Amino acid sequence: MNLQNKTRTPKVTVIGAGTIGLGWITLFLGHGLSVTVNSRRENAPELVREGVELFASHLSEGALAPDEFAPLVSFEPDIEKAVASADIIVENAPEQLELKQELFARISEAAPPEALLLSSTSTFDPDMLGERMRDRSNLLVGHPFNPPHVVPLVEILAGEKTKPESLNRAVDFYRSVGRVPIVLRKPIVAFAANRLQSALLRESVHLVREGVVTVAELDDIVTHSIGLRWATIGPFRAFHLGGGPGGLRAWLATLGANLDRGWELLGSPSMDKETIATLITQADEAFGDRSYADLVRERDTLQSAVLKALATAMERVSKGPEEVASV
Amino acid sequence: MNLQNKTRTPKVTVIGAGTIGLGWITLFLGHGLSVTVNSRRENAPELVREGVELFASHLSEGALAPDEFAPLVSFEPDIEKAVASADIIVENAPEQLELKQELFARISEAAPPEALLLSSTSTFDPDMLGERMRDRSNLLVGHPFNPPHVVPLVEILAGEKTKPESLNRAVDFYRSVGRVPIVLRKPIVAFAANRLQSALLRESVHLVREGVVTVAELDDIVTHSIGLRWATIGPFRAFHLGGGPGGLRAWLATLGANLDRGWELLGSPSMDKETIATLITQADEAFGDRSYADLVRERDTLQSAVLKALATAMERVSKGPEEVASV
Repeated sequence: MNLQNKTRTPKVTVIGAGTIGLGWITLFLGHGLSVTVNSRRENAPELVREGVELFASHLSEGALAPDEFAPLVSFEPDIEKAVASADIIVENAPEQLELKQELFARISEAAPPEALLLSSTSTFDPDMLGERMRDRSNLLVGHPFNPPHVVPLVEILAGEKTKPESLNRAVDFYRSVGRVPIVLRKPIVAFAANRLQSALLRESVHLVREGVVTVAELDDIVTHSIGLRWATIGPFRAFHLGGGPGGLRAWLATLGANLDRGWELLGSPSMDKETIATLITQADEAFGDRSYADLVRERDTLQSAVLKALATAMERVSKGPEEVASV
Repeated sequence: MNLQNKTRTPKVTVIGAGTIGLGWITLFLGHGLSVTVNSRRENAPELVREGVELFASHLSEGALAPDEFAPLVSFEPDIEKAVASADIIVENAPEQLELKQELFARISEAAPPEALLLSSTSTFDPDMLGERMRDRSNLLVGHPFNPPHVVPLVEILAGEKTKPESLNRAVDFYRSVGRVPIVLRKPIVAFAANRLQSALLRESVHLVREGVVTVAELDDIVTHSIGLRWATIGPFRAFHLGGGPGGLRAWLATLGANLDRGWELLGSPSMDKETIATLITQADEAFGDRSYADLVRERDTLQSAVLKALATAMERVSKGPEEVASV
């Protein structure tokens, strides 16, 4: 299903209006989709209006402006009614398995049989989520990175009973709103991106705990080296280039044998009281003078700027080396 | 010593004209420093001219153009002569301890007593490098990330006998050429950035080895999520924000206890023949159709674009929230 070729844009229901829910709502509205918001909060319309206005400044170019959003969004606190005529349902309830299982059981009874059911969970796979559903052929995980209207990655995970067609529809849907869906080939605890993040955090904690650097210095090291690199090329391409013209093959031949040894030397810190106290003290020193809203705004502004720069540079690069040489 | 306040710019000698040496030469020339190149290669002048022209397009704004470089660079294949009147000596010889020890012994006898001696080594600390020197009070490690004219980080490591004044001079010097020096507070094998890189690579190899994703998919996951994030904010600030208005303290209170458990679940792959074969096959599929020069050009173009976008966005952000809201 290519959404672009359909005669009408899909009707989306977003369940939950927390940080992730609000990010999705902003993104979908910005792409001109009509969105029904299901939230138990009494002040949901106000929350959504405020959140969407704040978030919309970080949507990529070509997106609708907030004043164009208003006619596209509606609110329905009753879950059954909220999904009754939806094409796509995006669930962002708290990370509690039983809660989500009950939610999906109710959704699948009330939604149209062909509705695509997507969970933003970072924890559970579709087979767990759908345990109480009669039909889970349209159920998938689409795990975004926070905030989902800024960070492009969506990790997709199908369940044992997910139809291939539903997987394709999910991929097409996320692409249609400017995301980069990557389908995991098998389930794994915490999925891929968070595991990678956790691996880096472990060594970060080790370096701070050992007194090699402070929290602020560790952050500076990352942003000014590997972060910059990984925003542009992934770790394998980086090592492919590290091998020179011989590529990853050459790199593994000269340095690959040392990888195991290097890994053995990595830290395995424990989050004991002392470590936690050190991290909190140093984080207070590093960020304590700035408000949450201020830091979030800075993060999202910088991330949006990087994305825009990458898109522009990528376009230039794809024109070929001659034109790139003068960049 | 603030280089900006000196009556003349420092005279720099760069030892070695491999990839790292060429990057340094380009960066120093671009900042208007006069550079003596010490290289055993007969075609060093040609190599340097070509390398510098290729690299110069990625220098940040305000840098000199290659045709302004020519009068600033000279070549001296004799090591003693090359360092005889240098203010700063940047060593980029192969990573062989005895070779570097001999080099620094000779340099320290031939260079002016106040010359700053900087090693680009990624492996050895100053106490190892200076073992055969009579006076190592001016010797430090300044480990760059590749390529040093693009990636800003320089990890600085002083030895037991390094003078505090020399440490300050080294920090000032790297800052004067637009780098971000971070002083490591104690020696650690492989320093900080490469350890962090290694930690991420370990989990990356695990995910590919387990068949969760391919090499190409792993790279896409990183660039479109954590890479983007870490180019703008470091891991600790990211988790500080993950805690909401309560910051890292709140995040550790709710999720911190699970960190240890998450770390225990991370992979510990071994680089056996099968793993190496999988990585090489998938890397060939992912990058095999593109030349080394093409991939390097793309990497450096994208990294330069990201750095420029970050600098511009940071300037805007620092003007305050009101003006940022419309970004």
